[in-house]
Amino acid sequence: MSGSSQIYRSSTTAPVNIAVIKYWGKRDTALNLPTNSSLSLTLSQKSLRAHTTASCSESFTSPDSLILNGEKEDIQSSKRTQACLKNLRSLREKLEAKDGSLPKLSKLTLRLVSANNFPTAAGLASSAAGFAALVRAIADLYELPQSPEELSIIARQGSGSACRSLMGGFVAWRAGTKEDGSDSLAEEVAPVSHWPEMRALVLVVSAEKKGVSSTAGMQTTVETSTLARARFSEIVPRRMKEIEKAIHEKDFETFARITMQDSNSFHAICLDSWPPIHYMNDVSRAAMNAVETANRKAGKLICAYTFDAGPNAVIYYLEEHTHQAAGVFKSILPRIPGWEGEFGEMIRPNEFGSLEQKSLMTLKAGVSRVICTGVGGGPEKIEEHLVDEKGIAVPHE
Amino acid sequence: MSGSSQIYRSSTTAPVNIAVIKYWGKRDTALNLPTNSSLSLTLSQKSLRAHTTASCSESFTSPDSLILNGEKEDIQSSKRTQACLKNLRSLREKLEAKDGSLPKLSKLTLRLVSANNFPTAAGLASSAAGFAALVRAIADLYELPQSPEELSIIARQGSGSACRSLMGGFVAWRAGTKEDGSDSLAEEVAPVSHWPEMRALVLVVSAEKKGVSSTAGMQTTVETSTLARARFSEIVPRRMKEIEKAIHEKDFETFARITMQDSNSFHAICLDSWPPIHYMNDVSRAAMNAVETANRKAGKLICAYTFDAGPNAVIYYLEEHTHQAAGVFKSILPRIPGWEGEFGEMIRPNEFGSLEQKSLMTLKAGVSRVICTGVGGGPEKIEEHLVDEKGIAVPHE
Repeated sequence: MSGSSQIYRSSTTAPVNIAVIKYWGKRDTALNLPTNSSLSLTLSQKSLRAHTTASCSESFTSPDSLILNGEKEDIQSSKRTQACLKNLRSLREKLEAKDGSLPKLSKLTLRLVSANNFPTAAGLASSAAGFAALVRAIADLYELPQSPEELSIIARQGSGSACRSLMGGFVAWRAGTKEDGSDSLAEEVAPVSHWPEMRALVLVVSAEKKGVSSTAGMQTTVETSTLARARFSEIVPRRMKEIEKAIHEKDFETFARITMQDSNSFHAICLDSWPPIHYMNDVSRAAMNAVETANRKAGKLICAYTFDAGPNAVIYYLEEHTHQAAGVFKSILPRIPGWEGEFGEMIRPNEFGSLEQKSLMTLKAGVSRVICTGVGGGPEKIEEHLVDEKGIAVPHE
Repeated sequence: MSGSSQIYRSSTTAPVNIAVIKYWGKRDTALNLPTNSSLSLTLSQKSLRAHTTASCSESFTSPDSLILNGEKEDIQSSKRTQACLKNLRSLREKLEAKDGSLPKLSKLTLRLVSANNFPTAAGLASSAAGFAALVRAIADLYELPQSPEELSIIARQGSGSACRSLMGGFVAWRAGTKEDGSDSLAEEVAPVSHWPEMRALVLVVSAEKKGVSSTAGMQTTVETSTLARARFSEIVPRRMKEIEKAIHEKDFETFARITMQDSNSFHAICLDSWPPIHYMNDVSRAAMNAVETANRKAGKLICAYTFDAGPNAVIYYLEEHTHQAAGVFKSILPRIPGWEGEFGEMIRPNEFGSLEQKSLMTLKAGVSRVICTGVGGGPEKIEEHLVDEKGIAVPHE
């Protein structure tokens, strides 16, 4: 390794996104093409973000490498990562072919270093933020002119939902119909500034063990659920239209109802799979119950639960209902970590009304931490690099 | 009241039935016409039965009355009970019109007394056995010539699933298509003698509170579940054919798979309802897990779970697999009540293999009793009357 070779670096942060219309089912497993469109909110990077530095240099010995949270990852045998790298290199090659003065970065070994600002143990899907950051950082390193929509086609091949983390605000992933996946990409439905009052409270539930992996679970559902077909072909397309309209009109009640219904629909087709798949547990159901109680007390829908492939609850609400929605949980769970920070401190504890004792005890026993956040922007280019000027990975904190 | 008037009495016992293809959804709420056909196993009356005496006399003052488990029921305002009584009286009137020598029982006040041999607290649907016993006892009192199929049309109006408790063995309730419900009736698919080795183990789970009532829940599902339509129109009709064939061929593995899939499908459309309906809890899921573990260990399907509108598990298995199937639960839950009696005593405790610790603890904490039973026969006429020779209700034990 020659220390004198130039080190090219670019760093970015990328957000987590939590879907309100769920992605569950692939029509093509190699290209990560989904059975249905989906829609998510990008969450603020103050709370949750992946930070990735892409670097390359003639001094780096092959092969390409990735260090994730201080651990070396095996990216050579990861088809998904290889697909992303190949696509990005190919775009760089085209630039270099057009402009001979450009350094031939496409020929250099990539050294990638990534770190999340949240514990992996929290059970939050970090792969979306991770692949979005990886694609964005390399695209920046290569100075690619492609738009986030175009890059989302590449990120999608890393991890389906990663395509939605390349943009901020309210993001749709259009399923597309083409066999090569060239129309299966993410689009901004509305920017953060359209509805910046949207908040999210994550209840982190300690699960005894990780359930079925998303990739395996999705295939089981596609192959065996007799109820799923209607979801893919009719129910989700209708809901996509309805929730996009609700977002454009800032109609929280419709947004909330569809969000909850679609989460339930997703878990219903999981239960209808063979063998059946369970992600929610009694703690999840106690959280649903608390949301229903808060909505009943308010006389309208002021908060909405949604559950991904795990027991954690994500609860969306508007800033004006912070007290009535998130305050209930702060009152029930005052001493668990996560209430600090900009979004959390403003939440005043609020009596939980008629929530039944059993749900109360289940939440107290089962929720290990909260994350207080809100809708946020897309990836950001930053100058804090995880690879130093000599090309060495900065030690993980 | 004149003590010298003749007291006419007839008594019957009727069984509980547990569906393997679930009834969930009415296309006509007044007539209890279902959205789909269903199929159940009639369970042995040694373990679970309703015992009903129907009596009438000129000495009984109006109105008709029913004492259930020692408590007077308000049957005047029960449209369902009134529909049964009206239909049965009408059939008796026709007999009396044809044969003038018959006593005019149709004009006399009915005094009905009923008792279950199992605690209502067990959360077992007792209305099926109750209405079947009521209809059978009055039909016997009136000496009606109608077949069980014909009487099932009347029992159905009391409680939908009651129609299946008028026969033993394996019983289908044909949804029918007629508006007046005259083709919505129960039929024997196979008698007990066809497959007498079929056993059932009920795990009684103590729920914190009764969930949504079946009648209310069904309507919520029919009106709101977007996934239910496929279940009603395609999935259940296909499964009915498959499971009837499996029963005829005594193919337990196919029977078991369809039983489990249909239970999951039913709970999936409950979750997909708005507001969502939950009947299973973490104890139910631990029971599913234990069944899956026993099947995995056996290398084939030797037992099948099914869940009705509550957290109780019913586990079907064949006598030859008593040790491998029910023995697992006896080993996990040796000290709870219910292992005594003919079916229970033969179960030898069996190691539970690789069942995870969490499921084990959840079952130990959540199952309050078991009921060991098997497939059994239909209603039986008995001479033990719950109304004495003077027309007085025998005190409830």
